[in-house]
Amino acid sequence: MTQLSPLDFRSDTVTQPDEAMRLAMSGAEVADDVLDHDPTMRQLEERVAELLGVEAALWVPSGSMGNLIALTVHLRPGDRFLAPRGAHVLDNELGTAAWIAGGMPHPLEHDAGPGRASPDAVRAAAGTSGPYYTLRTTLLCLENTHNAAGGAVTQPDEHALLVSAARETGLRVHLDGARLWNAAVALGLPPAALTVGVDTVQVCLSKGLGAPVGSVVAGSSSFVTEARRVRKMLGGGVRQGGVLAAAGLVGLGRIDDLAQDHANARRLARGLAELGWQVDEPETNIVLAGVPDLEVTLTGLRHLGVFAGPMAGKVRFVLHRDVGADDVAEALRRIGSAS
Amino acid sequence: MTQLSPLDFRSDTVTQPDEAMRLAMSGAEVADDVLDHDPTMRQLEERVAELLGVEAALWVPSGSMGNLIALTVHLRPGDRFLAPRGAHVLDNELGTAAWIAGGMPHPLEHDAGPGRASPDAVRAAAGTSGPYYTLRTTLLCLENTHNAAGGAVTQPDEHALLVSAARETGLRVHLDGARLWNAAVALGLPPAALTVGVDTVQVCLSKGLGAPVGSVVAGSSSFVTEARRVRKMLGGGVRQGGVLAAAGLVGLGRIDDLAQDHANARRLARGLAELGWQVDEPETNIVLAGVPDLEVTLTGLRHLGVFAGPMAGKVRFVLHRDVGADDVAEALRRIGSAS
Amino acid sequence: MTQLSPLDFRSDTVTQPDEAMRLAMSGAEVADDVLDHDPTMRQLEERVAELLGVEAALWVPSGSMGNLIALTVHLRPGDRFLAPRGAHVLDNELGTAAWIAGGMPHPLEHDAGPGRASPDAVRAAAGTSGPYYTLRTTLLCLENTHNAAGGAVTQPDEHALLVSAARETGLRVHLDGARLWNAAVALGLPPAALTVGVDTVQVCLSKGLGAPVGSVVAGSSSFVTEARRVRKMLGGGVRQGGVLAAAGLVGLGRIDDLAQDHANARRLARGLAELGWQVDEPETNIVLAGVPDLEVTLTGLRHLGVFAGPMAGKVRFVLHRDVGADDVAEALRRIGSAS
Amino acid sequence: MTQLSPLDFRSDTVTQPDEAMRLAMSGAEVADDVLDHDPTMRQLEERVAELLGVEAALWVPSGSMGNLIALTVHLRPGDRFLAPRGAHVLDNELGTAAWIAGGMPHPLEHDAGPGRASPDAVRAAAGTSGPYYTLRTTLLCLENTHNAAGGAVTQPDEHALLVSAARETGLRVHLDGARLWNAAVALGLPPAALTVGVDTVQVCLSKGLGAPVGSVVAGSSSFVTEARRVRKMLGGGVRQGGVLAAAGLVGLGRIDDLAQDHANARRLARGLAELGWQVDEPETNIVLAGVPDLEVTLTGLRHLGVFAGPMAGKVRFVLHRDVGADDVAEALRRIGSAS
Repeated sequence: MTQLSPLDFRSDTVTQPDEAMRLAMSGAEVADDVLDHDPTMRQLEERVAELLGVEAALWVPSGSMGNLIALTVHLRPGDRFLAPRGAHVLDNELGTAAWIAGGMPHPLEHDAGPGRASPDAVRAAAGTSGPYYTLRTTLLCLENTHNAAGGAVTQPDEHALLVSAARETGLRVHLDGARLWNAAVALGLPPAALTVGVDTVQVCLSKGLGAPVGSVVAGSSSFVTEARRVRKMLGGGVRQGGVLAAAGLVGLGRIDDLAQDHANARRLARGLAELGWQVDEPETNIVLAGVPDLEVTLTGLRHLGVFAGPMAGKVRFVLHRDVGADDVAEALRRIGSAS
Repeated sequence: MTQLSPLDFRSDTVTQPDEAMRLAMSGAEVADDVLDHDPTMRQLEERVAELLGVEAALWVPSGSMGNLIALTVHLRPGDRFLAPRGAHVLDNELGTAAWIAGGMPHPLEHDAGPGRASPDAVRAAAGTSGPYYTLRTTLLCLENTHNAAGGAVTQPDEHALLVSAARETGLRVHLDGARLWNAAVALGLPPAALTVGVDTVQVCLSKGLGAPVGSVVAGSSSFVTEARRVRKMLGGGVRQGGVLAAAGLVGLGRIDDLAQDHANARRLARGLAELGWQVDEPETNIVLAGVPDLEVTLTGLRHLGVFAGPMAGKVRFVLHRDVGADDVAEALRRIGSAS
Repeated sequence: MTQLSPLDFRSDTVTQPDEAMRLAMSGAEVADDVLDHDPTMRQLEERVAELLGVEAALWVPSGSMGNLIALTVHLRPGDRFLAPRGAHVLDNELGTAAWIAGGMPHPLEHDAGPGRASPDAVRAAAGTSGPYYTLRTTLLCLENTHNAAGGAVTQPDEHALLVSAARETGLRVHLDGARLWNAAVALGLPPAALTVGVDTVQVCLSKGLGAPVGSVVAGSSSFVTEARRVRKMLGGGVRQGGVLAAAGLVGLGRIDDLAQDHANARRLARGLAELGWQVDEPETNIVLAGVPDLEVTLTGLRHLGVFAGPMAGKVRFVLHRDVGADDVAEALRRIGSAS
Repeated sequence: MTQLSPLDFRSDTVTQPDEAMRLAMSGAEVADDVLDHDPTMRQLEERVAELLGVEAALWVPSGSMGNLIALTVHLRPGDRFLAPRGAHVLDNELGTAAWIAGGMPHPLEHDAGPGRASPDAVRAAAGTSGPYYTLRTTLLCLENTHNAAGGAVTQPDEHALLVSAARETGLRVHLDGARLWNAAVALGLPPAALTVGVDTVQVCLSKGLGAPVGSVVAGSSSFVTEARRVRKMLGGGVRQGGVLAAAGLVGLGRIDDLAQDHANARRLARGLAELGWQVDEPETNIVLAGVPDLEVTLTGLRHLGVFAGPMAGKVRFVLHRDVGADDVAEALRRIGSAS
């Protein structure tokens, strides 16, 4: 029996830096980014700020750190923050929003669509007035695309209404844009169209864009000044980080390539549906499939050399630059013959 | 115009110590409870442990501190805990479950009735396995009676099923029993019938029982040893606390009096319904009434000398030993004539 | 063999409320101090603010909570604070200055005398400038009298120079005045003479003044507004606290009585010296004696019914209103006959 | 006037990755180190564990994160830890030992030599017994070489006595070995000779060894399991980190080169002394010089194109692979002609 070649749909974080990216890294101009400001870091940060339409940006080793820094800067101890149920800051950051950032999370139902609370729900949950012994709600966290909702996209008009609801009720807004690039590509809009009115935003370089390490947290210049200090506190201040920033810059040149991942996601969803699976129509690069027994299905797929993961009680397939249309076809073939 | 005498339904925390209680306080035998163990404190703590059917108990200045101590002992930084939506530990303790106890709260819907999640919902939300980067859920917080659900009672059989669901999935159980006495009286059961299987429980002396200050957190002897240290950390270790414990002991002798508060709650609810209000049938000493405009109603009541408060978007009336059947009748008369 | 009556010099926290104090407690006018403002609490807080020469004050269940609240309000996460070596906030509050208030403690040597750093040492250790990755020092904690230095008094002129040094270097100043009353009495000055220029001060009612429970933290009105919220967070918001405030008010009328404790401390020190002990000259109500083996001496004293405690490697005797001149004579007699 | 070429003695963190290192990075085999275990990461971690004589090791983005992880794993909230005055964990990590790790720092004087407390001082400051309201001291942090003490080396026999003192008194031991390689080279010993008996140790790849980014924290396998989780919490879990680990592996092959930095340090110290400076004899790669006015001297040096920094009130020159003997000679020439 021959060993089946692995097809890895577990996450777009598995993407490998390619030759061009490695070349850029090996030639990067660098400096000590704590004592000075690494020139390639600076270039990356300026480029991301420009793409996102904000004043300034800061490289961080991971999206989790970017979100954690934003929450730490925004929240005073005990402040409540709102986030759509299943958000990464709620379920996937090991509780650091609470124990490090000091925030009290409050999940919002997806009453406006997958991954999205309605502006009315935001207004109802907000509130910083009341007597001194009242919990204060001071922050709204959005997530676009919303991972646990299957890469669901929030449209610019809905985004604007959510930001307005937050503003009216005195909330700041942080946007977890780990896959904001995917949302922009799916909508055919520049990324800055999806950050209008936010105080801070986090974007990843190490997912669909293929950089090996790194994310960026961005906002006003004064936010970035504070964020730089918190990054150092958390141990995320690095020295010659330009070697990583160089990879990120290459990745930023490839945002449009994400359209292929979206096309492949649709191919995979269609194929699975034809095989009788219950599949949500993908909006971006994530395919969620409901199955009777999650563990049994994941194990079965693994035996076929098809690697997926669990998300919100379903099977999650993530499309990315290291699995092409051929790989999708091959995965479908293997699944089909095993049925 | 004559000033209307105030009728205070804002909370059972407004109860005043009466003569017998003050006499007990002034005659209490006391000692330095930090260096030694104040004898009246010890007597109170032993009595509460006995009533609750647990090994040991510890006086604390407030119910909030009792809950905070329990969470601090149970949770490691970042651990997730479950609690029914609207629970006091979620909405009324200024986020300390997160920033001091280090816990990541996860609200459960009341899918099993007012104030109560179902055992299945507990099982679905639990889970401490998974890879190292997975959020751990390690604690279930119950609340009986559930304040924001209008003093709703959890029955012993439902309680037992919730505790079983927690045990199966590796969760500890803390019971916020700030008004556990009310639940016991409503059910005609001893309080210990409602603590079966919990790890820790907090009960208040300063609500319906009428003591001026104090609550008790209870559990195993080893829990109380740790809790004593955390109490000192939070600044809740007091010296000659026996003066307060004496009041608590008097209050413990009056648990059965709570039946009058419950009867008065039913009287008030019936009267309000007759006046056309939309009122939930009270299970204990809390009456919730839905109104079109909360602020307008609360202000109108205040002008009538009838003081109530907001809770979960409704008007909350709390019955207690300092408002009798006559006061309820008078309140209804004023509201009726103002309609 | 007859049992020797216990003579308790372990701490002035062991003082018992006397008849007058208990009477005041049992007759105190009270209200729910969370929802409203208990009138006796208010009276106590206004009286303490007046005595300390500050705008406003807040009752707290313990001196530890008073200090913790002040530090929590003053410090941002990671800020460094200065305190004289052996200070209560450093050594006797279970590390809460760090893990709850988020402060990084930095002990100062007693280079200006017992319990006191010099203004130059403050200036040298201060500093909030420097690049973004530099630790910020933002607070000076003083302690008058200084417990671990044997109840040592800081004179008003020294105090003023320390406050000036703090101001010049951008530090706020908190004064742990758990025994500030003793310092004032020893100097023959009003307490307000010892709080000049501080931002916040904490004073105890439950030590030499004899109240069973309670301390007060004081400062500007805006500080007290924030402090009230932090007190609620920590679980120190109590309901009919007037029963305790009444005892505090009685205690405040007895500040001058502390002179007797100081006279008794001098009697004890003199007597011990005559018996060959190595004793520091007491400035207030604390006597520290150096001994070859601390545990052996404490055990030996205990067998004589003389209870003392360890402090900074020495034997600490604390004089208070429940041990009189006769008790001192009796203790010396027992020690003398055992030698 | 010609611009003077900059000679950068501010820190060994400014070292740039050279061609060989960049080549290794660009060819590194990588994988998603969160989901799987990046093979180059694994190789680096195994190599460091072997060099340090411990079971297991974990790459981290910075030395600060390595220390913070170790403290977070070792300390319970409020635990006190000991460290020699001026230690990096005390003065250079923005207070995170307190506000994140929850520890209460206690500096030890250098009574046994530069950078080193004596075993007796450790024993005197330790102690986890005492009543429940007693601060617990549970950890000793060592630093070898000690940065603020001018790169001072702790010898293996002194190290062993300190570890013994810690063990006797129930303390765990963490070693901040950011420049442990320098200590080993200075002593002509393998690094494992300097970690005997410690629970955990942190070493840097991005200082003298020249890697662009990264440190390693190491200890038992069970420690590394916990550390991996805390690293994820802090946002230090990265994806294709092998590109950085590859640089670290190259650096580990160059440990012996540090001898040149030490020789250059001695050259610089000798030269400065000949120019009349007051210079400590360097033990490794750091030269501290006492000057009358630190700011004036640093500015003056800067005008000469000689970049140094402040440390413990002195001028600190750090020697590293990017400043050679020629650069030292040139710096001395410039300083000499400016005198």
